[in-house]
Amino acid sequence: MPTNAVRLPTASDIEEAYSLIVGMVKATPVMTSRSVNALLGCSLFLKCENFQRVGAFKFRGATHAVLRLNDHDAKNGVITHSSGNHAAALALAASQKGIPAFIVMPENASEIKKKAVAGYGGIITFCQPTQKDREETMLMVKEKTGATFIHPYDNFNVICGQGTASLELMQEVNPLDAVLAPVGGGGLLSGTVTYIKERFPDVKVYGAEPQNADDAFRSLRDNTIYPSIKPQTIADGLLTSLSPLTFSVLKKYCNGILTVSEFAIVEAMQMIWERMKIIIEPSSAVPVAAVMLNRELFAGKRVGVIISGGNVDLNRLPWQC
Amino acid sequence: MPTNAVRLPTASDIEEAYSLIVGMVKATPVMTSRSVNALLGCSLFLKCENFQRVGAFKFRGATHAVLRLNDHDAKNGVITHSSGNHAAALALAASQKGIPAFIVMPENASEIKKKAVAGYGGIITFCQPTQKDREETMLMVKEKTGATFIHPYDNFNVICGQGTASLELMQEVNPLDAVLAPVGGGGLLSGTVTYIKERFPDVKVYGAEPQNADDAFRSLRDNTIYPSIKPQTIADGLLTSLSPLTFSVLKKYCNGILTVSEFAIVEAMQMIWERMKIIIEPSSAVPVAAVMLNRELFAGKRVGVIISGGNVDLNRLPWQC
Repeated sequence: MPTNAVRLPTASDIEEAYSLIVGMVKATPVMTSRSVNALLGCSLFLKCENFQRVGAFKFRGATHAVLRLNDHDAKNGVITHSSGNHAAALALAASQKGIPAFIVMPENASEIKKKAVAGYGGIITFCQPTQKDREETMLMVKEKTGATFIHPYDNFNVICGQGTASLELMQEVNPLDAVLAPVGGGGLLSGTVTYIKERFPDVKVYGAEPQNADDAFRSLRDNTIYPSIKPQTIADGLLTSLSPLTFSVLKKYCNGILTVSEFAIVEAMQMIWERMKIIIEPSSAVPVAAVMLNRELFAGKRVGVIISGGNVDLNRLPWQC
Repeated sequence: MPTNAVRLPTASDIEEAYSLIVGMVKATPVMTSRSVNALLGCSLFLKCENFQRVGAFKFRGATHAVLRLNDHDAKNGVITHSSGNHAAALALAASQKGIPAFIVMPENASEIKKKAVAGYGGIITFCQPTQKDREETMLMVKEKTGATFIHPYDNFNVICGQGTASLELMQEVNPLDAVLAPVGGGGLLSGTVTYIKERFPDVKVYGAEPQNADDAFRSLRDNTIYPSIKPQTIADGLLTSLSPLTFSVLKKYCNGILTVSEFAIVEAMQMIWERMKIIIEPSSAVPVAAVMLNRELFAGKRVGVIISGGNVDLNRLPWQC
């Protein structure tokens, strides 16, 4: 079976997703700052998904995936294994539809994350903190409940949901010269490139990735999916590797992956907090850092950045305090 | 001369101020949060002056005061003594009009504040960190330059400018049941009560003040202006005492001053950072804490809060990190 037998999402799919989830997800603001623009030498437009429900863009994809379930499947609920924003997003999306969300979490996940998922009504099953036990536990719970597995990014409907952030961004600030989004598993970036490159082909779309977790950069360069092996980065939302689906989308459309140092991530994060008075998580600072480090590429341009989220442990900030 | 010989600002004055400064000041967003509302048992509407230029509402009053200068006075510039947000605001407002701003600052002011004022084009004269030397230095510079003194709050035009935040708030979220603003010298609260009580007489308007700097509370209770003597509070924007002008306005209109503990200020500040992903300064957390501590008063109500600013030293946060 040739690769193109897998249907990739299109801008039309994203527009359809938008018509389904509009009103259920927050139409987040686009924010700008004169002083940040002066520092970076371009005009930055931040699509603030840190203000999205559950504090991250993940709620878009999860909401869309839940709405796409047929009545029979919906009844049995949804399941995922995750300790991050996707778990919280899926739990809330399911509870909004009145169906159960089964979340498999490693027992050593932080109390904050456990509380968040439970607070949104997620039914937690703890597992050992290994990939093997995580998957086995997931299969066991899935078997028992008949719940539908919603992968955090290797999922057509999830990608379409994530793409709606770019749709709203362009509704508000078109024209742009370039758009950046962080890349971990590639769900957000896949939705972003698909919508932007199909509807606004002249706009450049870049992924941004920590140098210390540059598997997407290497995967696209070498045309093969590299696993992300024990990456050491503060951008804890970007630890995962591309999937077959997101790899195919990015290969087709992405103008490139820009990588940044840990130092630049912290510097960019602190600049946005200080100058714009908004809390963005390290993963969201990655594309800002990419703009900061590539001045010539963006000089004088109108640049959109998808701010992925704002879930930061305020008791563990990456600067001295 | 009877007290009422001093003309107090009116809602019409504030509307006129608004027509002058609209477009020069940022129309800041009003933000809400389901999870904060659930925690507080009411519907909170935050008027986000932390997103105002220079990071504080002070830019409204300073801009208005500068615009009201006649051509002759404008030529000689403006002067103030301050180490806080008013100094930065006046410096920027003056530079927008192309006139000099002379700022007298104690030589031990923080480097951050010195840089901010200089960055906005303020011409700094350093003085000893005593009230006496501050005033003497100010008079000396004023004498030499002919600049007009713009008091941070005991100033008709400044108060009218600060009142425009409430005007915008009501434009966006009317009806409200109550509005709160922090009170230090009383400029913001004076503008707030004047606009709200004259245009929406049924809305309750409260000031909020740290227990450790409760001079406004005591002044209104005892009908005399108490000086604020060495207050020890984290809310560093609320250290000053009422002036004759702000005292008269508050006496006429304010429904009361609610006081809060230092502990509650930090708790409220952290809650807003965590839940709403916005950076508010301790002074802005004071009215949020007042809502938190007075549940019965606000239960089920629609409550507006003027978030005064977002200028926080990120290297010195009031919680462990």
